[in-house]
Amino acid sequence: MTTRTASPKKPVLYAAILAGGRGERFWPVGRASRPKQFVDLFGGKPLIALAVERLRGLVPPERVLVVTSRDLVPATRAALPLLPPAQILGEPQGRDTAAACALATAWVGRAGGADAVLCILTADHLIADAAAFRRTLRAAADVASRRPAMGLIGIRPTHPATGYGYVELGAPVSGPGLPRGFRKVRRFVEKPNLGTAATYVRSGRFVWNSGMFVWRVSTFREALAAYRPALLAAMDRVAPKFGSPALGAALAREYARLEKISVDYAVMEKAPNLVAVRGDFGWDDVGTWASAGAHFPADAEGNAVHGLARTLAAHGNAVVNAEKGHLVAVFGAEDLVVVHTRDATLVCPKASSDGLKALVRAIGEDPATAAFVR
Amino acid sequence: MTTRTASPKKPVLYAAILAGGRGERFWPVGRASRPKQFVDLFGGKPLIALAVERLRGLVPPERVLVVTSRDLVPATRAALPLLPPAQILGEPQGRDTAAACALATAWVGRAGGADAVLCILTADHLIADAAAFRRTLRAAADVASRRPAMGLIGIRPTHPATGYGYVELGAPVSGPGLPRGFRKVRRFVEKPNLGTAATYVRSGRFVWNSGMFVWRVSTFREALAAYRPALLAAMDRVAPKFGSPALGAALAREYARLEKISVDYAVMEKAPNLVAVRGDFGWDDVGTWASAGAHFPADAEGNAVHGLARTLAAHGNAVVNAEKGHLVAVFGAEDLVVVHTRDATLVCPKASSDGLKALVRAIGEDPATAAFVR
Repeated sequence: MTTRTASPKKPVLYAAILAGGRGERFWPVGRASRPKQFVDLFGGKPLIALAVERLRGLVPPERVLVVTSRDLVPATRAALPLLPPAQILGEPQGRDTAAACALATAWVGRAGGADAVLCILTADHLIADAAAFRRTLRAAADVASRRPAMGLIGIRPTHPATGYGYVELGAPVSGPGLPRGFRKVRRFVEKPNLGTAATYVRSGRFVWNSGMFVWRVSTFREALAAYRPALLAAMDRVAPKFGSPALGAALAREYARLEKISVDYAVMEKAPNLVAVRGDFGWDDVGTWASAGAHFPADAEGNAVHGLARTLAAHGNAVVNAEKGHLVAVFGAEDLVVVHTRDATLVCPKASSDGLKALVRAIGEDPATAAFVR
Repeated sequence: MTTRTASPKKPVLYAAILAGGRGERFWPVGRASRPKQFVDLFGGKPLIALAVERLRGLVPPERVLVVTSRDLVPATRAALPLLPPAQILGEPQGRDTAAACALATAWVGRAGGADAVLCILTADHLIADAAAFRRTLRAAADVASRRPAMGLIGIRPTHPATGYGYVELGAPVSGPGLPRGFRKVRRFVEKPNLGTAATYVRSGRFVWNSGMFVWRVSTFREALAAYRPALLAAMDRVAPKFGSPALGAALAREYARLEKISVDYAVMEKAPNLVAVRGDFGWDDVGTWASAGAHFPADAEGNAVHGLARTLAAHGNAVVNAEKGHLVAVFGAEDLVVVHTRDATLVCPKASSDGLKALVRAIGEDPATAAFVR
């Protein structure tokens, strides 16, 4: 077994970026054909390209995998020209994160063996301090390689958010050579109400669930064997087809029968060997246009502006203009989101921007406008 | 003289449309190069074309004159293909309405003689009841042809507007064969405050000054001779050049020396022979985007919409989309003006829309955006 086993001090690290997002929350920049991971308003690059870039020095491109929907494979390849095309896996159907995690783990098991360590990452977050992020992943990888434990990258809560999952931390995980800061996971709480969330934040015992995990291939396989054996068996049938033209057919066959379930529900909430760390690296899930505004430069009147725009007597607006040669002017308005693209323009109060899906659905249901959300 | 004199029962009627407006209030549809009279959002035709059309049956195109700025002559010709090109006069400089009225009167004097009757009209208003409007002009022309009086077309005030000039009416003008409803003008009041305006409206003695007048050529010439002899002399030097290639040079020479003054200040407020009628034909000066909204169809949520737009949970907005193939979506917002054109988009609260000039000025003063107001 020693040939397949990395040194416990230096695990061979892989990353799988789950890029299954949709475009609704960032319409009209985001579309069904160009969901959130392709939004390129932050640093001028698509979020998915930033997700790969921030691994620099930790995981090289030849060990980075992307799991996305089959329809988005061409766009993903275009956004990630440096990634070997075979490392962009297209799922024939969306089966939530359990399937995507199992698929990625199967791929890494083939490429790196049972002792390879895999970071499950997301494509649609911003991380301000990439170095701190890499240090956190490296520490979680150390734990995952030394212990038969799965690591959850928690986020130190900054406010009593009600839209996130919370994870309660328990006893510290310690031992010779183990990095500090890891604790056993006591329980998951999905989207608490405001009062409960505030209690959690004050207690200091909770972290947000970032959806990012780190595990050894063998450890996750054991968890699947215990809680989702059918999923493990399906991916074991897929695994021999990686890199072959038969992969698409194998995926189609298996995915047609897979249940749609998140890895949290399917595995994590059940597993006793889950540990978590309190990550503190400027994580932002940029879930709405209003929150995206925080990442754009502010003009003299306190408006967050991206692209060519002119504001006057206007305050607290987020203005995104993605069309070159077009001017967006906001006059006398407060706390609006104004987003302009070549073929569509959105105006809504910031306070409404987290309900944007309802608008996108209405546009999609009207034959006269459906083309503008595709 | 009888050969030049129209029958007092049937004066030969001319119309001069003063089209010297600017585009600021209707930016971004209106531009310096395409001011308000070219805005084509009402009935699908430019306002200036509507101004000519509504004279149908009263003044034929061969007796309609347009006075505009020299730069706008080509665009005006394009908007009015049925008007003989020589009837579109371009002023080399803006000298306000006194000069434009004198120029138009000189032209009509050459074409129709001293007894011809001229209606001075504007290019940037909407008139809902064109038949009532024509009846009012016809009646004013009857008065102007039978009496040495100048007629002012007043507007029955519908609310205590503070942005208009008010005209106080005095004793009725009556006599055999004269139409009813004309009164002597007692005084002009420019833009009263709200309390004063409310008093005026309640009194029933005031009308708004529409800027539309009806006079016999000889009557206006006498008024000019009394109050602005230099202007009369200047136009008498221009008059022989109408229809000749020398017209442009003559206008340039005379306009360079003309004072810039409105016909109200220069003549009307001084003349004792001014009469006015209380016009009631659905006049609207559509002075702001907010007021323009009243002329667009309302959607199910009470938003005034022109062009392709989708609203949801949005109320009381005015949405103008002048670009085909582009979608404007307004979500959760109230009482906004959203105006989209191919190269610029405006968002402002309705309540701010009458201050739009400040925005347009700011855009024009910034080299990075100045092109968007030209």
